Amino acid sequence: MRPNSAKRKLLAGESVNCGWLSIPSSYSAEIMARQGFDCVNVDLQHAMTGFETAVTMLQAIATTDAIPLARVGSHDPAPMMKLLDAGAYGIICPMISTAEEAEGFVDACRYPPIGSRSYGPARGVLYGGADYVSCANDEILTIAMIETGQGVENVDAIAAVDQLDALFIGPNDMCMDLGKAPKAESDDPDVVAAIEAVLQAGNRAGKPVGIFCSSADAALGRRSAGFRFLVPGSDANSLTGIAREAVAKLS
Amino acid sequence: MRPNSAKRKLLAGESVNCGWLSIPSSYSAEIMARQGFDCVNVDLQHAMTGFETAVTMLQAIATTDAIPLARVGSHDPAPMMKLLDAGAYGIICPMISTAEEAEGFVDACRYPPIGSRSYGPARGVLYGGADYVSCANDEILTIAMIETGQGVENVDAIAAVDQLDALFIGPNDMCMDLGKAPKAESDDPDVVAAIEAVLQAGNRAGKPVGIFCSSADAALGRRSAGFRFLVPGSDANSLTGIAREAVAKLS
Amino acid sequence: MRPNSAKRKLLAGESVNCGWLSIPSSYSAEIMARQGFDCVNVDLQHAMTGFETAVTMLQAIATTDAIPLARVGSHDPAPMMKLLDAGAYGIICPMISTAEEAEGFVDACRYPPIGSRSYGPARGVLYGGADYVSCANDEILTIAMIETGQGVENVDAIAAVDQLDALFIGPNDMCMDLGKAPKAESDDPDVVAAIEAVLQAGNRAGKPVGIFCSSADAALGRRSAGFRFLVPGSDANSLTGIAREAVAKLS
Amino acid sequence: MRPNSAKRKLLAGESVNCGWLSIPSSYSAEIMARQGFDCVNVDLQHAMTGFETAVTMLQAIATTDAIPLARVGSHDPAPMMKLLDAGAYGIICPMISTAEEAEGFVDACRYPPIGSRSYGPARGVLYGGADYVSCANDEILTIAMIETGQGVENVDAIAAVDQLDALFIGPNDMCMDLGKAPKAESDDPDVVAAIEAVLQAGNRAGKPVGIFCSSADAALGRRSAGFRFLVPGSDANSLTGIAREAVAKLS
Amino acid sequence: MRPNSAKRKLLAGESVNCGWLSIPSSYSAEIMARQGFDCVNVDLQHAMTGFETAVTMLQAIATTDAIPLARVGSHDPAPMMKLLDAGAYGIICPMISTAEEAEGFVDACRYPPIGSRSYGPARGVLYGGADYVSCANDEILTIAMIETGQGVENVDAIAAVDQLDALFIGPNDMCMDLGKAPKAESDDPDVVAAIEAVLQAGNRAGKPVGIFCSSADAALGRRSAGFRFLVPGSDANSLTGIAREAVAKLS
Amino acid sequence: MRPNSAKRKLLAGESVNCGWLSIPSSYSAEIMARQGFDCVNVDLQHAMTGFETAVTMLQAIATTDAIPLARVGSHDPAPMMKLLDAGAYGIICPMISTAEEAEGFVDACRYPPIGSRSYGPARGVLYGGADYVSCANDEILTIAMIETGQGVENVDAIAAVDQLDALFIGPNDMCMDLGKAPKAESDDPDVVAAIEAVLQAGNRAGKPVGIFCSSADAALGRRSAGFRFLVPGSDANSLTGIAREAVAKLS
Repeated sequence: MRPNSAKRKLLAGESVNCGWLSIPSSYSAEIMARQGFDCVNVDLQHAMTGFETAVTMLQAIATTDAIPLARVGSHDPAPMMKLLDAGAYGIICPMISTAEEAEGFVDACRYPPIGSRSYGPARGVLYGGADYVSCANDEILTIAMIETGQGVENVDAIAAVDQLDALFIGPNDMCMDLGKAPKAESDDPDVVAAIEAVLQAGNRAGKPVGIFCSSADAALGRRSAGFRFLVPGSDANSLTGIAREAVAKLS
Repeated sequence: MRPNSAKRKLLAGESVNCGWLSIPSSYSAEIMARQGFDCVNVDLQHAMTGFETAVTMLQAIATTDAIPLARVGSHDPAPMMKLLDAGAYGIICPMISTAEEAEGFVDACRYPPIGSRSYGPARGVLYGGADYVSCANDEILTIAMIETGQGVENVDAIAAVDQLDALFIGPNDMCMDLGKAPKAESDDPDVVAAIEAVLQAGNRAGKPVGIFCSSADAALGRRSAGFRFLVPGSDANSLTGIAREAVAKLS
Repeated sequence: MRPNSAKRKLLAGESVNCGWLSIPSSYSAEIMARQGFDCVNVDLQHAMTGFETAVTMLQAIATTDAIPLARVGSHDPAPMMKLLDAGAYGIICPMISTAEEAEGFVDACRYPPIGSRSYGPARGVLYGGADYVSCANDEILTIAMIETGQGVENVDAIAAVDQLDALFIGPNDMCMDLGKAPKAESDDPDVVAAIEAVLQAGNRAGKPVGIFCSSADAALGRRSAGFRFLVPGSDANSLTGIAREAVAKLS
Repeated sequence: MRPNSAKRKLLAGESVNCGWLSIPSSYSAEIMARQGFDCVNVDLQHAMTGFETAVTMLQAIATTDAIPLARVGSHDPAPMMKLLDAGAYGIICPMISTAEEAEGFVDACRYPPIGSRSYGPARGVLYGGADYVSCANDEILTIAMIETGQGVENVDAIAAVDQLDALFIGPNDMCMDLGKAPKAESDDPDVVAAIEAVLQAGNRAGKPVGIFCSSADAALGRRSAGFRFLVPGSDANSLTGIAREAVAKLS
Repeated sequence: MRPNSAKRKLLAGESVNCGWLSIPSSYSAEIMARQGFDCVNVDLQHAMTGFETAVTMLQAIATTDAIPLARVGSHDPAPMMKLLDAGAYGIICPMISTAEEAEGFVDACRYPPIGSRSYGPARGVLYGGADYVSCANDEILTIAMIETGQGVENVDAIAAVDQLDALFIGPNDMCMDLGKAPKAESDDPDVVAAIEAVLQAGNRAGKPVGIFCSSADAALGRRSAGFRFLVPGSDANSLTGIAREAVAKLS
Repeated sequence: MRPNSAKRKLLAGESVNCGWLSIPSSYSAEIMARQGFDCVNVDLQHAMTGFETAVTMLQAIATTDAIPLARVGSHDPAPMMKLLDAGAYGIICPMISTAEEAEGFVDACRYPPIGSRSYGPARGVLYGGADYVSCANDEILTIAMIETGQGVENVDAIAAVDQLDALFIGPNDMCMDLGKAPKAESDDPDVVAAIEAVLQAGNRAGKPVGIFCSSADAALGRRSAGFRFLVPGSDANSLTGIAREAVAKLS
């Protein structure tokens, strides 16, 4: 099976960067994936992307060395399994607030006897290779988003869940759940403390912690602070910023 | 009929900026259109976009004040008419090298008795209003691309074509047709001279001249030089640049 | 944030009419939205429409003054949040039979601290404006469908749910759940009584009540009876009727 | 090969009615085709429809007894052949103004030795049957649109073209080409005379003549006048009318 | 209502064969459906197919005599109802391990008073006919997949569920759930015994049992063993096999 | 620039096999491309495929080592250029009957100063690499179809056209143009002679000749006869055959 180079870097203690796709297009996906990210995530939670376009985006990413990931919109196992069948090499699951939720999540991403993922890796074998089924439990990356106060409270139990590979902070939802204004790099003390608590829990459990950032510069700062899975904004945000700047210059 | 504010600015001697859409997505189209461009162009020549996605992009642009344009891939009148029916408020036609070609182009964009555009403004009336057919000949913008040596030789005749509203330089094709390496802001003397010749011809004919630029800064420079229809790069180029920069920072 | 004019009319005690989209096309959506409805609903329950086409339909509606709504297919919060992120300004939720179900529904449509909607208003900010997140809880319209006998029994408790803005009757499902033949304007006494009970509960709670009708004439009748959110049939039904009539005339 | 019942009715001197699809959706196509039309036309000239959606519409029509037709956007043979390969049982070609244009059109619709249609009836054999290639020249319907003054002048020569099965008037374009306001049922004397001239030429040549109408009532009138291929408006126009009427009633 | 010929054959004790669609295309769906299968299944669990493409595939199947089925990805009732509304004449539900799960499944596929399917048979009436709603409970086919050890344990209770029409074995998932390597025709004794247990339970309950096979030859063997709903591989597997063989011959 | 391995094999006198895609799906495209073909062709002439799906198919092919080609539907340069921009590494042009037609074809596929291809290699640079523009004239494969009697008459002149890389016979069209029944491996003496004439002309000109075959066995025979670009049937034909065989076995 094609190795999951992003997972291996994380396991080796290295940091990985991750492109983030909110635009539902295989062309913009290939543009992003071609620029050198370790992995690229197809968002199906807050992006304008449905399943079939996501498949073409996973194919576009597969033309490059970047590892294809997908973020789902809920804890429902069915879309997780379908995206794995479509060749995603990792799933990012939002709003994990308890160890039970984390266990349900990883259960959907692992074949028996570890989990209960259903057999049918349509594109998985095309991308991963003929031995996909026997190796997938090792290669597929499972990333739980910690973005609620309850998730922070339970973060040690979550981080301890077997088969869960990494934690990932959604800072905007974290802010809102804590009653603060949403901000990727908030300096609100409660938010700062919550984020730090997740990072420390990951360190204690020996599991990498990631965070969504508003820019590459912000991601550099987070990396210095110990985060190892770094998203320097999304394609949509990047496009917004550069277009706004262009119009401002020309006005 | 909804006025074509971009055309009116050009007729009033003002400069307009134009967002350029190479990504086939109504979502990225809306992002771009929302940032304040005077007009936004859906490219169907070199972009990965087909007709039906172009329609959704024209709809997305129509949620904003930016005027929707479309660039076609050839001199064939049928796609021009179909894009106008779909609500494009202007057509950019590539590779105009003779006055006859320019006449054929504008003929397709004007209803009788001026031209031979066929009746059937399906989305045109939704976007433009009930009086679309009687006003369209005035509001629709026709922009001929000058991007060959032959086009430069014939530029005065082209600029003199009635119903042709503006000239637009494709600098990369201009370079290649002149035997030079393609570059948006080439300093090759032959290219510089050709571009200047088009600008002067436009000025003589009282018609605005535009040019594709590699960035907003480059567009500012072109505007200072007298160009009045300015494209500060494409969405795809912008995304490439910002992703490459992010990866570089994080590597 | 762009005001939700349909919600404001309802809050002001006025009636609103709502176009209903069962055809999965941004073009027919724009045709419908352009004709003057207060709001237009993209159906994702019984229509042939998936998420990505729904996005283009929401964009098409956003080219007009009609407020875009979406009906989801179940009580699952994920599609509700994703459609709100896509710019729906209200959600119609089917088969609400208990106050708990209604609470779960509105929880998904409100940001913390009121609800648990996740942050990521991709098209929401494009359509609504930069202050979308701080205002969305006020502007987004929540409409619970009462269409079961159990829903009628619990209608006062449902109507009392905070953040629930309106009730909406699905008369065909109501008929079937009561053991009657499905009919939009049934004169079966049990159905008539159930519908009247919902209307009275809405009145007691000070919340507007709507109903799906088979035609504009039927909607006029319902409005006279006190209903304030009126759907005069769907695009698909309208098209069926007019085509059938045309064929009958020509046969 | 499945017989082309619409063509056979025309050859037998009967009149046929034709549904007209401007909405790019296989669902609305199936709704229309199911209502009893003799044939249903997928418009690719002025509608918002591209090739791939047209294929799904042709499939939707093929679930019924209505014969699937397609209108192309120009005289280019390639799209005609591709739509025939996709299972269209007839082509409507716009803007035929000379016999040469008509000959080019029918040449594209007939296999050698009659014409030069290229072999590859992908869906043709699925819809038509295993003997498609040997029978297609007989079953495929060729309909030339007469909608210019020049077309009227040349109408006898056009009608005399072998393999051309019928004439079809586009009254709006006819009006505009004659310098009149576009109107489906114009009473302008010049337009009336031009339309009558086409009808008489068809009668002289023994070929049926059709016309686009604004409604079923208008089509009834045209049928009384001798027209035998009758289009009672389009799906988009019907939807516009009924939605506008509904809003008017409820306002 | 158009009779469900596949269900009637099963009720009459005959065997049916079923084409299996993993490729998301209405064209390949029509190719498959045209070859003479009793029924053809649109897979939405492990295939690369989303809802809207599934609709066009159901339409493509409806151009033939093959009965259209759909396999959903989970026990969620909403997609079942939506696919039935789209004209599926049967639902295959994966991973049924208890009678309660089977009851929930069939409840979603039956209108009141038997079940709780919501009213709105958009394409159902187009395909099935005007009396669709009153007949659908009889014609719609419900097929529960038994593919876990728990399902085998509970198979008699599952088979006894009223309104459940047939059992269908997913042999690959069965293998994996039993801790064996996935194989369509495994000769592992535990797997063989589990499959036999399901077949016997079906026989006891008087309900047909089906199984996914790797080829037509394998299906013949299963039929001899008493299975009556036979899937001779999928389109994707068939294509893989024939392409691999072609390359091998030419290498 | 990524080397065009299929072209290099042809230039080295080796034979290449080519998968042929008639099904409009990136998933079936990836299945085919993954089986080991030297190159895989996306058909846009007789297949049910439009431009945007073709792009996703080119992306799917690009996940493998197979070289992506595209067949266009006519001699129009615009679609050729757009498909090259989309990453096709070769164009197959149908119905080349004269040297002038061949010259027009290769002109569209070569950048100045050799040809007049317009600049804008959107996906070309993603797939080919940063030096795409300077190397594309060498790597892009141009294949002219000889499939008419006139083409056979002119085959030496066609084969002599500079920049034309290979000849490819469409045997079905060849049969029909010669007045014979279409058959991939016809033994009609006139067809046999015509095909042999093309092969000999290719040999004289030192240019490889290919042919569409009905199966891998037929392709083996053609290879023995000297053909070097071999298409062993299409995906659609393969699927038809295997499904028909399965149904026959089970009936």
